[in-house]
Amino acid sequence: MRRKIFNLIQVSPHNRASHAVDLFILFLIILSVVEIILESFRDFESEYHILFVDFEIFSITIFTIEYLLRLLTADYKYPEDGWLKSRLRFIFSTSGIIDLLAILPAFLPLLIKVDLRFLRILRLFRLARIFKLSRYAKSLRLIGQIVREKMPELGISMSVIFLILLIMSILIYHLEGDVQPEHFPNIIAALWWSVVTLTTVGYGDIFPVTDMGKLLAGSISLLSIGLLALPAGIISSGFIERIHRTKKCPHCGKDLEQH
Amino acid sequence: MRRKIFNLIQVSPHNRASHAVDLFILFLIILSVVEIILESFRDFESEYHILFVDFEIFSITIFTIEYLLRLLTADYKYPEDGWLKSRLRFIFSTSGIIDLLAILPAFLPLLIKVDLRFLRILRLFRLARIFKLSRYAKSLRLIGQIVREKMPELGISMSVIFLILLIMSILIYHLEGDVQPEHFPNIIAALWWSVVTLTTVGYGDIFPVTDMGKLLAGSISLLSIGLLALPAGIISSGFIERIHRTKKCPHCGKDLEQH
Amino acid sequence: MRRKIFNLIQVSPHNRASHAVDLFILFLIILSVVEIILESFRDFESEYHILFVDFEIFSITIFTIEYLLRLLTADYKYPEDGWLKSRLRFIFSTSGIIDLLAILPAFLPLLIKVDLRFLRILRLFRLARIFKLSRYAKSLRLIGQIVREKMPELGISMSVIFLILLIMSILIYHLEGDVQPEHFPNIIAALWWSVVTLTTVGYGDIFPVTDMGKLLAGSISLLSIGLLALPAGIISSGFIERIHRTKKCPHCGKDLEQH
Amino acid sequence: MRRKIFNLIQVSPHNRASHAVDLFILFLIILSVVEIILESFRDFESEYHILFVDFEIFSITIFTIEYLLRLLTADYKYPEDGWLKSRLRFIFSTSGIIDLLAILPAFLPLLIKVDLRFLRILRLFRLARIFKLSRYAKSLRLIGQIVREKMPELGISMSVIFLILLIMSILIYHLEGDVQPEHFPNIIAALWWSVVTLTTVGYGDIFPVTDMGKLLAGSISLLSIGLLALPAGIISSGFIERIHRTKKCPHCGKDLEQH
Repeated sequence: MRRKIFNLIQVSPHNRASHAVDLFILFLIILSVVEIILESFRDFESEYHILFVDFEIFSITIFTIEYLLRLLTADYKYPEDGWLKSRLRFIFSTSGIIDLLAILPAFLPLLIKVDLRFLRILRLFRLARIFKLSRYAKSLRLIGQIVREKMPELGISMSVIFLILLIMSILIYHLEGDVQPEHFPNIIAALWWSVVTLTTVGYGDIFPVTDMGKLLAGSISLLSIGLLALPAGIISSGFIERIHRTKKCPHCGKDLEQH
Repeated sequence: MRRKIFNLIQVSPHNRASHAVDLFILFLIILSVVEIILESFRDFESEYHILFVDFEIFSITIFTIEYLLRLLTADYKYPEDGWLKSRLRFIFSTSGIIDLLAILPAFLPLLIKVDLRFLRILRLFRLARIFKLSRYAKSLRLIGQIVREKMPELGISMSVIFLILLIMSILIYHLEGDVQPEHFPNIIAALWWSVVTLTTVGYGDIFPVTDMGKLLAGSISLLSIGLLALPAGIISSGFIERIHRTKKCPHCGKDLEQH
Repeated sequence: MRRKIFNLIQVSPHNRASHAVDLFILFLIILSVVEIILESFRDFESEYHILFVDFEIFSITIFTIEYLLRLLTADYKYPEDGWLKSRLRFIFSTSGIIDLLAILPAFLPLLIKVDLRFLRILRLFRLARIFKLSRYAKSLRLIGQIVREKMPELGISMSVIFLILLIMSILIYHLEGDVQPEHFPNIIAALWWSVVTLTTVGYGDIFPVTDMGKLLAGSISLLSIGLLALPAGIISSGFIERIHRTKKCPHCGKDLEQH
Repeated sequence: MRRKIFNLIQVSPHNRASHAVDLFILFLIILSVVEIILESFRDFESEYHILFVDFEIFSITIFTIEYLLRLLTADYKYPEDGWLKSRLRFIFSTSGIIDLLAILPAFLPLLIKVDLRFLRILRLFRLARIFKLSRYAKSLRLIGQIVREKMPELGISMSVIFLILLIMSILIYHLEGDVQPEHFPNIIAALWWSVVTLTTVGYGDIFPVTDMGKLLAGSISLLSIGLLALPAGIISSGFIERIHRTKKCPHCGKDLEQH
């Protein structure tokens, strides 16, 4: 019986019953995201409030049953671990945490007393439902793998970018802080300008007005544009390596990646 | 007779008569685009209104004759298909649809009753004439081929970018929605900010003002700038691969690509 | 005698006298550019007006003598051509035209009657002096060579970008023209917005305000960001290929490029 | 005795006592940077002013002792040089200058009479403490090495970018100077616009308003976007080459780079 349930909730496009369950959960996730978007239209939300509440109760029920079943059959997923260890391993796995976060906002107010402000932040955790997609969408899993693989390179280039942002912020604060105290009140505020400039977004809400500030902004923009290209290049190369690796072998036609 | 017409309207720089027809149609397409641009200068348009109308009647007549002749000789283009099938195949081919859209706005008002608002949208379909260029300009055909070839890679990276845009929009709406309800009234409106920020366009019409909003905007800008480079890299590599493939062999001088 | 003059004005770091002439001309070019910049400070210019006029007369005299000497010794530069042909070849060579443009603004008013407005445009031709640097700065010559080499690839990608800009402009004009007639009065004006958006500069002087306009702007930004990377990639690859080619041979230590 | 001190202050994760000294100095550097940031919050600074002064005295004392000890044991660092020469070599080495700049702002006012304005600039030199990190953070040393290695390529592309910026500035000044004298008062002011446009930051504080100015801005944006990619490409390639070189051998596990 428990083995049957395990096979049913596993992602497998070959077993018809299991595939139907996958599609149902997938459909519910997408509907959940649509619900989050529609709720933000306040007129619409107040008009169909009951519908939104009903759907919320329904989806939480399904996601809770799904979570409990996955917990129950965790020993089939990790057969090398014991009864308790396999369950703990599921709870603390990435997908286990995501599944829990997706239903937690509904149960926490029942368990502990929370104020309204905290409740609103709690509701944001429903965003975890988007990440539940990663069980079904290979592309989302890919990002995680690539970022983990390329972590050493990313770490180096990110720390270099962070140091340049810091130096930029300290210098611009000292050059512009007296002239535009409302825009550069302190170094942390100047960091916002540094990020907006270095990423070349350039909203135009804050910009240097003194000659020295412009000289600094111009020089650093020109010099460090190459550094910003680093994480881009690293992630891109990781992504493209991956795509090549998942291609089929040209000789035997077999899939080159092990699942 | 029909074979002669077919040879005449086919693109071929070697046959003199056919080449003349090509150049005439090409000239008419470019003139059509110039007409669309000039019409937008309202003073100019009202002064030379009759000239614009006359040119429109003339170009529609030519394009209609061209379309009918292509339809008539479709069995020479697809010799393996039958009389009806070859004609249907032309009608539903990409270039067939473009040719039809380029003349449709002139005929639809005669067939069905349309209101003025719809008529204006109809006139926009004349833009299809730009795409008629693709029969003559190899570069325009190239894009279509490359995009089709690289679709799996583009699909993955585009879906990743779309998910990040979605998550950005939901988070920024919850962080800035109360403070700037006029700029972030709902999640779909927040999506506009997300796209403008992630593509680093940064018009400056909307930007976060709260500390948490700035933290989110800054972090995502820095982290996801690599993801935006993905479709760029994929299309670039596809384009450059193509250009190399279309080069001639250095030894025998023959074209290296099969047409 | 003429041969001696030719050797003197040729760029050669090995001959001491010729090298001194090179440095003198180079110094005069840089001073000329500094003069153009300083002239734009109006207070400064009016105070030292006589100095600027004197320097202008001096530099024009030297550049004219240089031009005449190069013309006189053109048959040593193109020894395979005859007396007249070598001179004509120099006059219509890129560096010959640049040399002429650099002195023309001073002589044209003496030859023909020009009005004040035209005189101001004429003075801009002094900018040609910057390009005179290309005789001495290898890097400037490099750009010209690379752009010429990669012209077919650049042509294709530039025409694709131009067509997308055109389609963007026509669509945004029809979507925003009625709502913001002051920003999108006609399609040519809309082209300015298209360029500013596609290059991700995003000044924020013009942006779409309607929902459909934002949808169009967002979609095209996301889709075509890859196309903009094309000329970047092409020129970059050309530049890097060049740099590798100009390196010395690792075996014999000789310069790998023929001059 | 001096040898022991030398071993203690050298960066070495294997010797426990020396590692403790490294971590202590590292901790003090980070605390110094945090102090610089916190000082910029004026309310906070005035409340805890005495704490800041105390910490400053403490850190300067430690950094001075560190500097003197490094100076004292310089003959162990450069054993091939004599007593005086090794000391001079340390003083004028990059890390020696950084160490001196980090403590100088505290001692200069004692040695010579400085006015308040100069004192503020002096305090900025404390930023040198960030660069003291380079002794401990490999990533910071990497940048220096890569920039030095790729200097010829960077030099060429930077000079090309600078020339384009110059030409852009001169042209836009002549096209927009009369219409917007407050934004383009002279060519140096126009250079700010050129940098902001070419790096695609586009704050929107200054932009062309005349038709010719827009034409120039649009053309140069499109044409030179490729050139801006050059330093990015060069530094990226240098960085990635380095990362590959610093990897360990997959067979023997040894570090592939010689230190």
